[in-house]
Amino acid sequence: MSRVINFSAGPATLPVSVLEEIRDEMMDFKGSGMSLLEHSHRGAEYTEVHETATALVRELFAVPDTHEVLWLQGGASGQFAMVPMNFLGGGVADYVDTGSWSKKAQVAAGFYGKPRYAATGKEGERYVRAPQKLDLSADAKYVHLTSNATIAGVQYHSFPEVLSSGTAAPLVADMSSDMLWRPVDVSKFSLIYAGAQKNLGPAGVTLAIIEKSLMAKGNQELPEMLRYDFIASKGSTHNTPPVFAIYAVGKVLAWVKAQGGAAAMEKRNRAKAEMLYGTIDGNAEFFRCPIEKASRSVMNVVFNLPTPELEKAFLDEGKKNGLVNMKGHRSVGGIRISMYNAMDPENIQTLTAFMKDFAAKNG
Amino acid sequence: MSRVINFSAGPATLPVSVLEEIRDEMMDFKGSGMSLLEHSHRGAEYTEVHETATALVRELFAVPDTHEVLWLQGGASGQFAMVPMNFLGGGVADYVDTGSWSKKAQVAAGFYGKPRYAATGKEGERYVRAPQKLDLSADAKYVHLTSNATIAGVQYHSFPEVLSSGTAAPLVADMSSDMLWRPVDVSKFSLIYAGAQKNLGPAGVTLAIIEKSLMAKGNQELPEMLRYDFIASKGSTHNTPPVFAIYAVGKVLAWVKAQGGAAAMEKRNRAKAEMLYGTIDGNAEFFRCPIEKASRSVMNVVFNLPTPELEKAFLDEGKKNGLVNMKGHRSVGGIRISMYNAMDPENIQTLTAFMKDFAAKNG
Repeated sequence: MSRVINFSAGPATLPVSVLEEIRDEMMDFKGSGMSLLEHSHRGAEYTEVHETATALVRELFAVPDTHEVLWLQGGASGQFAMVPMNFLGGGVADYVDTGSWSKKAQVAAGFYGKPRYAATGKEGERYVRAPQKLDLSADAKYVHLTSNATIAGVQYHSFPEVLSSGTAAPLVADMSSDMLWRPVDVSKFSLIYAGAQKNLGPAGVTLAIIEKSLMAKGNQELPEMLRYDFIASKGSTHNTPPVFAIYAVGKVLAWVKAQGGAAAMEKRNRAKAEMLYGTIDGNAEFFRCPIEKASRSVMNVVFNLPTPELEKAFLDEGKKNGLVNMKGHRSVGGIRISMYNAMDPENIQTLTAFMKDFAAKNG
Repeated sequence: MSRVINFSAGPATLPVSVLEEIRDEMMDFKGSGMSLLEHSHRGAEYTEVHETATALVRELFAVPDTHEVLWLQGGASGQFAMVPMNFLGGGVADYVDTGSWSKKAQVAAGFYGKPRYAATGKEGERYVRAPQKLDLSADAKYVHLTSNATIAGVQYHSFPEVLSSGTAAPLVADMSSDMLWRPVDVSKFSLIYAGAQKNLGPAGVTLAIIEKSLMAKGNQELPEMLRYDFIASKGSTHNTPPVFAIYAVGKVLAWVKAQGGAAAMEKRNRAKAEMLYGTIDGNAEFFRCPIEKASRSVMNVVFNLPTPELEKAFLDEGKKNGLVNMKGHRSVGGIRISMYNAMDPENIQTLTAFMKDFAAKNG
């Protein structure tokens, strides 16, 4: 079948050239007479894949020498547990509530200390903003926020000023759904983590960028696998890493670099967002985005149509036109368009043309 | 390059037909217009992949209704922590020491209680047997053993009788390197776990088969991601699973089924072991296997040549003949031939012919 336009929130669409490379290398990786899947994780071939991916992270994120790059398993949910296990020690931590995922992170921390909410983006039943005003504790071990709420469609476009004032606790950010959407000043964060399956590649690996000084303060009374400092000391090959996922993320990062890096991604993503939100706002009676303008996500665009019946018709007709996975998360309903780095701007043109046509016919 | 014969200890050789299927499906999974890597883990396509893989585990291992099948992340090392976190609760557990991996499991358990050794397979500096005589505690929360020690080349061909007497504590087995090498009576085990990258598929997923009654006794004061019962309640899709790894393991399992299942694997593996150990014993002055006959691994065959120089020459000449990754683990040296389920018996014929020839020329 010809390729569809896939707006899935993650796992999500990948660059076609990356998929083609994976396909072409599957039987014989670089003339080694075997697939990369069959290579030892201690061998020269995989070591190069691993180190190249790590170097690309350092380059594309401009990671300073103060920070380490780690490849982990277990997804962001694994980090919800590992962060407090390492750094909470029965103390207080400030969590910012911007949706389901930030809530899950806070709940997990409850087993290791006293996580509290420093702010919420909720208004009534719905998350509508990424809160700027934070009520921080004096003794917080860290502040945790979710940079982009995939379900709610709420994103931080600038992080709260207080966090970069230098007096605040270490800043920990779950960037699973917007990692590398644009350049980020890594030095402002003590820990950034992200499941790969949205903006970075396929599912199966979790990228972390962690400040060495935070890592050094981690709980030492933990099994090796759960200590950031131990994992860093072994270059993330303390045990068998998820070879294929790191290999594929490396290819996506190389693709990002070829496009012009993080700055080019920002340009690309802003252009897509402008097109889509422009279409929504240009037909504001028909397409209704419930998110405050300053917090509207560039990655996951949520909106409603006038009735559930029209939403169903929109999804059905979209599918017939090769526009798939546009249904909002079951907890909020409506429409959700996920358009991570790999989503081609041309596809958003196709989508907005479809939207305008649908609105004209049904408005 | 033409395909080499890859004796890597893991990640390891895979069936060529599996690699071909993965390659052929990479760009368009079953006519869906996208790669499986791009499909939502909640969508119909991945759900079928996930459920098919789970059903194949149940079928090939004849998993009884008393047990659940789980797909986890973090490898066996992750389980070294998760097992005591769930089931030790400050108490005593009996660990059987058959090599580096069982030691790591015991060390990790030390953070959650009092793990002790019920036996060791070590004699002098070397592991030589899978101990049958266990000194069990009366109050152990569980007994933990490693069914096959990948580095030492030591394997349990029959498990200690005391463990199935009905009076013993729950039996937990790390079967990372010999899972599914033959039929196993799952009912004897309360928990079996295995990193996939040896006998089951590529790296990136950990298979667990756990008794429901054990799971129900798990520590509830843990984040969801670390609780077996929670993961089971969500069918291992509590968060995004490692989609590609489960997909590939599913294909390997389908291949095992097509070959005739676990019984056919046993026949195949015994034939390979007979050929290889026969060659070793037939040239016992030249090839020296330090493992007691009853504990010799069918998966990882370790042996020495008369001198380190001859071992180096063996590896070099082997490589020239397309026989690669035969070097023993750096901690023990010598030669190691790993030949998991996917290793074709014909390749062992090629190897033994090479060995005989090498011994004749250099003996």
